[in-house]
Amino acid sequence: MSTHADLLETLRGIVGAANVLTEGDLSAWEMDWRKRERGKALAVVRPGNTDEVAQVVKACAAAKVSMVPQGGNTGMVVGSTPDATGEQVVLSLTRMNKIRTMDGGNLTVTVEAGCILQTLQEACEEAGYLFPLSLAAEGSCTIGGNLGTNAGGTQVVRFGNTRELCLGLEVVTAQGEVWNGLTGLRKDNTGYDLRHLFIGSEGTLGVITAAVMKLYPLPAAQLTALCAVPSLDAAVELLGLAHKTLSSGLTGFEVMGQFALSLVVKHFPQQRVPFHETSPYCVVLEHSDNVSESRAREQLERLLEAALEQGCATDAVVAENITQARALWHIRESIPLAQAQEGLNIKHDISIAVSRIPAFVQETDAALAQAFPGARLVNYGHLGDGNLHYNVQAPADTDAEAFLRDQEKPINALVYAAVDRYNGSISAEHGIGSLKRDKLAEHKSPVALALMRDIKKALDPHNLMNPGRVVNL
Amino acid sequence: MSTHADLLETLRGIVGAANVLTEGDLSAWEMDWRKRERGKALAVVRPGNTDEVAQVVKACAAAKVSMVPQGGNTGMVVGSTPDATGEQVVLSLTRMNKIRTMDGGNLTVTVEAGCILQTLQEACEEAGYLFPLSLAAEGSCTIGGNLGTNAGGTQVVRFGNTRELCLGLEVVTAQGEVWNGLTGLRKDNTGYDLRHLFIGSEGTLGVITAAVMKLYPLPAAQLTALCAVPSLDAAVELLGLAHKTLSSGLTGFEVMGQFALSLVVKHFPQQRVPFHETSPYCVVLEHSDNVSESRAREQLERLLEAALEQGCATDAVVAENITQARALWHIRESIPLAQAQEGLNIKHDISIAVSRIPAFVQETDAALAQAFPGARLVNYGHLGDGNLHYNVQAPADTDAEAFLRDQEKPINALVYAAVDRYNGSISAEHGIGSLKRDKLAEHKSPVALALMRDIKKALDPHNLMNPGRVVNL
Repeated sequence: MSTHADLLETLRGIVGAANVLTEGDLSAWEMDWRKRERGKALAVVRPGNTDEVAQVVKACAAAKVSMVPQGGNTGMVVGSTPDATGEQVVLSLTRMNKIRTMDGGNLTVTVEAGCILQTLQEACEEAGYLFPLSLAAEGSCTIGGNLGTNAGGTQVVRFGNTRELCLGLEVVTAQGEVWNGLTGLRKDNTGYDLRHLFIGSEGTLGVITAAVMKLYPLPAAQLTALCAVPSLDAAVELLGLAHKTLSSGLTGFEVMGQFALSLVVKHFPQQRVPFHETSPYCVVLEHSDNVSESRAREQLERLLEAALEQGCATDAVVAENITQARALWHIRESIPLAQAQEGLNIKHDISIAVSRIPAFVQETDAALAQAFPGARLVNYGHLGDGNLHYNVQAPADTDAEAFLRDQEKPINALVYAAVDRYNGSISAEHGIGSLKRDKLAEHKSPVALALMRDIKKALDPHNLMNPGRVVNL
Repeated sequence: MSTHADLLETLRGIVGAANVLTEGDLSAWEMDWRKRERGKALAVVRPGNTDEVAQVVKACAAAKVSMVPQGGNTGMVVGSTPDATGEQVVLSLTRMNKIRTMDGGNLTVTVEAGCILQTLQEACEEAGYLFPLSLAAEGSCTIGGNLGTNAGGTQVVRFGNTRELCLGLEVVTAQGEVWNGLTGLRKDNTGYDLRHLFIGSEGTLGVITAAVMKLYPLPAAQLTALCAVPSLDAAVELLGLAHKTLSSGLTGFEVMGQFALSLVVKHFPQQRVPFHETSPYCVVLEHSDNVSESRAREQLERLLEAALEQGCATDAVVAENITQARALWHIRESIPLAQAQEGLNIKHDISIAVSRIPAFVQETDAALAQAFPGARLVNYGHLGDGNLHYNVQAPADTDAEAFLRDQEKPINALVYAAVDRYNGSISAEHGIGSLKRDKLAEHKSPVALALMRDIKKALDPHNLMNPGRVVNL
């Protein structure tokens, strides 16, 4: 144990004693967001700048102590909390929260990993720019965590995932070296793309300490519509029509199944949820325009008229103002909360080629209904990106805990086998962490897994960066 | 030599004798596009499908013979031709040229590596979709080569580089295993992003055999304008205004210096080149709209009026029809040809943060004029992406060959030192190949280079995939 004591002393020397937490309630760092696992850290270390991160990594590496990089700790797959050994250092980046520079002429912002996503969004908007990444945890997640997990959210249909918004990184490697890739270049073909290797690697290859992110001009108008659609086939047809009619003005396209909406109505009766009684699916559709609200409205109405005429929408409402638009989005955002109110449930975060989603859902709905009578399907998500949160709620009036205990594994197996048949992904936007690590080994190509292991061993040969996450060595 | 003979026999068995070329004029495969280097291949092997590629790679690996993957062989940096030893196999992908599937509902096309870019563009357009990658060599380059080098071109300001257009790859690894990543998913967070690692790796980590590429709706209208701008500062100001006014409708933004234009006028006198006598720079600007030509024209005119009023443009013409639009683009496309007509010259393919380009050019122009009196600067390129082809033509009426022999190195050194000071890239879109490999070692961060070497050694431990390109081991 004297090694650990020595290391703690060294760490205190680097970041200051106040930033090496070992006592008191550390659950904010040790417990994962969904409260599935509680770990125990040797210490929570909170460096204040990149040089301190590098020194901390070097010190931990010298002591052969593994590190768990952590941002807002809002991940969904148990990827940023320590294991139960009490021998891992949590490397919390939240003190590194500065927006370093904003470059309007280059349409970029350079930001430290610990900056809260919403803080970044607001600073950009204040400067007259849009930073489009938007997701449920934006009030607490950090941009470093978004990058580490390649977070998705609700604007992906137009702006891509976090990876597509990043032009460069600053990374502390597993050896404690600093790679400064903060050039802000839109084109740079000088060798392997290290940026994309670190993005989405969940802290297993190094620590992202800062990034250059893309900015966009603020839209002049943003309109939201809710459409009743008679089927998922119709929803996909509506999506194609929206791409064609709105082009890059299509900035959001979310689908919600009837049962998902009924849970919102049940648990949040103050919310007005149009069409939920009559329509098997509804779509929240957002249209942004860089010129004017009238131009945006004209184009959106053109889309909805065509959709009603073609029959891929049976009804639609367009928000008349921001309050109404927020209310429509709020329905969508309330689904996970309504699910939680309803009780324990099994979550999936899957993606399939958009065109194949209707067949996938029809087939898998039927298979689940047959194998697990009474199980209730809460199907919703980012249809524009082919990403469904295809969740399963225990049968009504049963012991949900017992249902999950007995049926979570076989239900996962059924759903993921269907995902495999459809050439899809078992983790579209949440990542792997430790929750899905073993599942990954079952569902990913052995060739891809071997490549991943080779990369991990090459960049982190002593397996000290977030070990046990993403790859099985 | 019996090993080589055995290998050739094995290769004939895999791809058929007609597809193992060892005799006759192989210069199309052995000489690089810019005719800078002529190599000698052990054989040019032309597999017809992915399985044959895998078998060829396995056979070469077993014989410890290195491979040079090649597409249309139109690269600019000597990256796809064999060395002079006569011991490398050129792995030509051009027989694998099928468009496998087009999925309108998913907005994707799955295409084999050897498909000519223009063939792909045309097939997509015929099916009602836009595949936006567009560059000078599109009539002969292949999509596999575009991916291997992460090609840029003229639509990057809107659609990104080749990398941003790719959703998945099929790759034969250095071990001859097939990784099938052709899922066509827009979101997939199941581990390290292998796709982006292979894209831009110039065949040094494996062989890209097929890819899923993004499609977009065809625009309803595309308008081209030529603007006279009083300075590069003004050009950057115009770019910002164009981003704001046109948003994603800005699909092209190219800058051309006065001397570059004068070469076009001199060597192609039949071309009409507005403003070249009076304006230090001109900009070709393209605006696409998904609704109508009248809407596009209204918005473009709004932009140009504002630019004239602000003074960031001093004059402008808008093409009235496709013929006129092509003529304006043709001016831009003629610059490299006019340069070649004018004589030998030194090419640079650099990128800098857009906002810093005016200062970079002012400083570097002055330094070059002082150090190399009479040297003529042919400055043009993709300003929308911060990418300049900042070329240097020998002084008029001098021996250009002698100038290049004596001055190419010191001129490169001056320009690249300035690029370093401005945190830029010495290869924005052309890649490294062998031409810039040693330069890379001088200008890239040692930490990044070490990471690249670690990755190369991990994925290609026997250094058989395009050895000597990109990374110095």
